[in-house]
Amino acid sequence: MNVLLVYAHPEPRSLTGSLKNYAVRRLMQNGHMVQVSDLYAMRWKTTLDSDDNTAYRPGTRFDPSADSMQAFQTGTQSADIVAEQDKLRWADAVILQFPLWWFTMPAILKGWVERVYACGFGYGVGEHSDTHWGDRYGEGTLTGKRAMLMVTAGGWESHYAPRGINGPIDDVLFPIQHGVLYYPGFDVLPPHVVYRAHKTDAAKFDRICHELGQRLDRLFDTAPIPFRRQNAGDYLIPELTLRPEIAADQSGYGIHAAPNRPED
Amino acid sequence: MNVLLVYAHPEPRSLTGSLKNYAVRRLMQNGHMVQVSDLYAMRWKTTLDSDDNTAYRPGTRFDPSADSMQAFQTGTQSADIVAEQDKLRWADAVILQFPLWWFTMPAILKGWVERVYACGFGYGVGEHSDTHWGDRYGEGTLTGKRAMLMVTAGGWESHYAPRGINGPIDDVLFPIQHGVLYYPGFDVLPPHVVYRAHKTDAAKFDRICHELGQRLDRLFDTAPIPFRRQNAGDYLIPELTLRPEIAADQSGYGIHAAPNRPED
Repeated sequence: MNVLLVYAHPEPRSLTGSLKNYAVRRLMQNGHMVQVSDLYAMRWKTTLDSDDNTAYRPGTRFDPSADSMQAFQTGTQSADIVAEQDKLRWADAVILQFPLWWFTMPAILKGWVERVYACGFGYGVGEHSDTHWGDRYGEGTLTGKRAMLMVTAGGWESHYAPRGINGPIDDVLFPIQHGVLYYPGFDVLPPHVVYRAHKTDAAKFDRICHELGQRLDRLFDTAPIPFRRQNAGDYLIPELTLRPEIAADQSGYGIHAAPNRPED
Repeated sequence: MNVLLVYAHPEPRSLTGSLKNYAVRRLMQNGHMVQVSDLYAMRWKTTLDSDDNTAYRPGTRFDPSADSMQAFQTGTQSADIVAEQDKLRWADAVILQFPLWWFTMPAILKGWVERVYACGFGYGVGEHSDTHWGDRYGEGTLTGKRAMLMVTAGGWESHYAPRGINGPIDDVLFPIQHGVLYYPGFDVLPPHVVYRAHKTDAAKFDRICHELGQRLDRLFDTAPIPFRRQNAGDYLIPELTLRPEIAADQSGYGIHAAPNRPED
């Protein structure tokens, strides 16, 4: 199968960099084709702006969505964006690998999402009607592909526990797993998170690699997080609130995954 | 008082840009001094890398935290970082204004946080002991200052309701309000959020300005969100989980604010 690893760390000799190298080797040993988008090494343009549409006319009003849609539809996107979209189309699975900086991905990776997820590609897909609010949250361009986060965090695991001060890790990652990956159609696997990343000796590194290896070996047969599909009946449209009878009287991120739902 | 507005939108004629202009005028009419960091206009360097430490020696291993700490302590930070830190020291209140892109701030603003919040300034402050886990979450360099988010979102308010598909807006903004603003000591005010931002006619714009004006007029006497201080007894140290008897049997972001707690 084809695996795209999008990697965001400035130092190749970091733990994050070492785990990237390990992951690439393991995936190739398992017979997969692997491409790596090493954003720092590529000197990825982080900031979304009017230069992303090569047909933008200076002096006109720049609209991030409308310009993105026009560029996507008319073939005037900048070449670096097109290349990443092609990699996404090629991939059967995508891994986003990054250190958790200020409780989310580094800016360089956020800029990858903003620029590569063009309007018409990553969002703004499909029809809006009384029963269908765009192809998103379970439907979209990237349907049928799998995605997984590989995260290194400085804090302790307990700091990200259900009652930990940083918030539960599932909540911290929800805007990425649900909002960035499930939104355009990916099946999202449980994340692989390494805590206290800066306190890693040789024995811990071996243990991390072993655990990561197990996850990568099962990349294509691990059950995804059972997020609820937007247009499959669980939500009122256009309010997009969960129907009152489902997870009644509950709220928050947790209600958007269905416990024990069989895979469709 | 002194107000710093950090603003992140690529188009001055956008709704976000118009609200920025309105806010600056209103704050000045109220007698405040105002500085604006217009990140796109400044062509802010978004990506954190070894160039941020002017004393970095090429070929050596770059450590984002250690290099940042060294540069901060020895005066070798790049000039753009120093200038923003000086603005933060000058400010009595800081407003972060941005469009909600993929459920968080734009990459250019995330890069501002990553680079300006140097180790020793935004984190890595204070001693670690059995009763005090660094000056953070209610203590730190920016203690005594207020902060507020001004956010424009494309989605509907119901999409960000407690049972909305995007997640509750308080949860969406928690990693910024708690993790980026409360962390180094800011008192964080409730956010000002505009929904369906791309559907704004003249009447709606007037209404938004009126509501925003009210919020800005009360910038210095609005009660902050009562987040719990890390080192004031509510958390076990070093686990940093909320003590079992507080908000017993509850979990998630919500437990980190104390309902009806009097302001200290």
